Amino acid sequence: MMDQIAENALIGRLGSILPRRPAQMNGLQESDAELIPLPDGTHRVLAATTDGVVEEIESGLYADPYLVGWMTVMANLSDLAAVGAEPLGLLVAETIPREFPEESLCALQQGIADACRLSSTHILGGDTNFSDRLHTTGTALGLIGGDAPMMRVRCLPGEVVFSTGPFGAGNAYALCRLAGTSPAPASFCPTARIREGVSLRQVASSCMDTSDGMLATLDQLGRLNNVGFILDAGWDRFISPEAEAVARKEGVHSWAMCAGPHGEFELVFTVPAHRVVALQQTASRAGWSPLRLGTVAGVPGIELPGWGTLTQRQSAAIRNHPLHGKQEISSFLGLLNGIEEAVRNSTEP
Amino acid sequence: MMDQIAENALIGRLGSILPRRPAQMNGLQESDAELIPLPDGTHRVLAATTDGVVEEIESGLYADPYLVGWMTVMANLSDLAAVGAEPLGLLVAETIPREFPEESLCALQQGIADACRLSSTHILGGDTNFSDRLHTTGTALGLIGGDAPMMRVRCLPGEVVFSTGPFGAGNAYALCRLAGTSPAPASFCPTARIREGVSLRQVASSCMDTSDGMLATLDQLGRLNNVGFILDAGWDRFISPEAEAVARKEGVHSWAMCAGPHGEFELVFTVPAHRVVALQQTASRAGWSPLRLGTVAGVPGIELPGWGTLTQRQSAAIRNHPLHGKQEISSFLGLLNGIEEAVRNSTEP
Repeated sequence: MMDQIAENALIGRLGSILPRRPAQMNGLQESDAELIPLPDGTHRVLAATTDGVVEEIESGLYADPYLVGWMTVMANLSDLAAVGAEPLGLLVAETIPREFPEESLCALQQGIADACRLSSTHILGGDTNFSDRLHTTGTALGLIGGDAPMMRVRCLPGEVVFSTGPFGAGNAYALCRLAGTSPAPASFCPTARIREGVSLRQVASSCMDTSDGMLATLDQLGRLNNVGFILDAGWDRFISPEAEAVARKEGVHSWAMCAGPHGEFELVFTVPAHRVVALQQTASRAGWSPLRLGTVAGVPGIELPGWGTLTQRQSAAIRNHPLHGKQEISSFLGLLNGIEEAVRNSTEP
Repeated sequence: MMDQIAENALIGRLGSILPRRPAQMNGLQESDAELIPLPDGTHRVLAATTDGVVEEIESGLYADPYLVGWMTVMANLSDLAAVGAEPLGLLVAETIPREFPEESLCALQQGIADACRLSSTHILGGDTNFSDRLHTTGTALGLIGGDAPMMRVRCLPGEVVFSTGPFGAGNAYALCRLAGTSPAPASFCPTARIREGVSLRQVASSCMDTSDGMLATLDQLGRLNNVGFILDAGWDRFISPEAEAVARKEGVHSWAMCAGPHGEFELVFTVPAHRVVALQQTASRAGWSPLRLGTVAGVPGIELPGWGTLTQRQSAAIRNHPLHGKQEISSFLGLLNGIEEAVRNSTEP
């Protein structure tokens, strides 16, 4: 099931050659960050994650060095958020073009600095290389004390699925930047849901960030837990107004804003029914509102009321579709249209 | 003093924009790995370091994917060794060419796996990107318990300076690969001195790895501590027989094997005179032999008996010399000849 997704298959293959730490709490794919229990009865878990910003730069998605710096920090902090860790700080390895203008270098550093400040965290150190292209790799470290960390696994049928916010900002930005006719939204500055993640630790049964988009997140959670999801309303219910506006302007169905691979770095999480009240309380204390998406089902697929069920095979076709150039984006949108039609038809009499 | 070295100046400039963690034990440049005290009276320090393998691949120095994987692990573990940490494991971010042959991918993973196994450590996780070129970024995490970590700072005049082994393997390999007439030595597989680093924690006053070559290491330690070094014998005394053989075959003076920027990942460390016996004992228990280089002096520069003193200005000229192509390597070797002559002449009557 997992290996139907090309990326999962690759990770499995690459990982199979490498020796893994026996004491590590998570297996491959089982959590957004690596979970390493600290010794000596400290009852603390070290969370660590690394993320390279390469394809986003080379494809032209991130053209502004400030955004590159910002995302180098936020993409990694978002993985810490999804396990409920509090950040200790980050390491940043930067590869800088030899002829990089001084103002670009400053913008890159300022993006890193601002993202750290907003998240109340710090840069611990880094490494600098020179090449003819810009790319960065961030590593975030965090601690989890007291309760167990959140993982992607362990959600059960009958539970309720939520998110920390609406979807679509990443795909809307990508559509405008890479294939669109309208200019990209002025700002794409996702923020890692650190505070939310920490407050979720006592109530959520599973959690994953939407760095690869909402559909990939629900599909991955479904595959890992051998479950499906019944969404209480159509995709449209969960799309941010800005993403909705982009979809309308570009003439694509708004579910493309959920189905594309460019995420908005929200958290998607499941909560047992008896803990939903506790969730509302803990979220309210921490100053945020969970967005209810629907419930966890015992069978695979993602059910959309009045729309039908998106099968795992259809999700796989979407997630495996390459997206390197304008032509592939256009054929991706065609694939989405075809799948939408097939799903709707499968439920009609 | 620090800013005379172009790389130091750059790191200072990049770092000045970034918020640093107040609780961090080391300032910029003060240790090979970042040192973060863990909370709750655990008396443990988390050590973390990140290192990108980019220039070594693009220059053609590392052409074999196995070596790239090996070095991604070893370069980072070497930084842990220099603070005396025991590894918790590594994260590896890989950027893989889209058309990478299967056997190259396997060799890359095998290099990572073998370097981990030899060092009794593990891969905790990673990230994969696709591009048209190979590059990797490793991050190593370790713990230091009990004693304080080793740093680059805190060595004093009168102390004794040692290394964990002879120098030259990295520069000999680089000379053959990039500019030489003879084939590169069959194997360049440096190993991180983890065991040595741990055993040094109770006796060394400062420590740094020779990832940038012996000269850069002594020069950097000198600048950071406002000291110099008096070596007990000439450079030749500390050069490995293999590196010596390459120097002879290529017709360069053997001190080029110490002066070039490609290190051999040994540890250079200082020990107060009254702890030299303890060093011999702890090293002997751990199964290795320290190599005595000389003593720490109260004035800057590196003194070579029968040769004169290499000034900080001369070291800076060597460390700042660019080395991108064959022509620059040749002018670098010319610079070394000129400096050698100047140093020898300055001591003659």
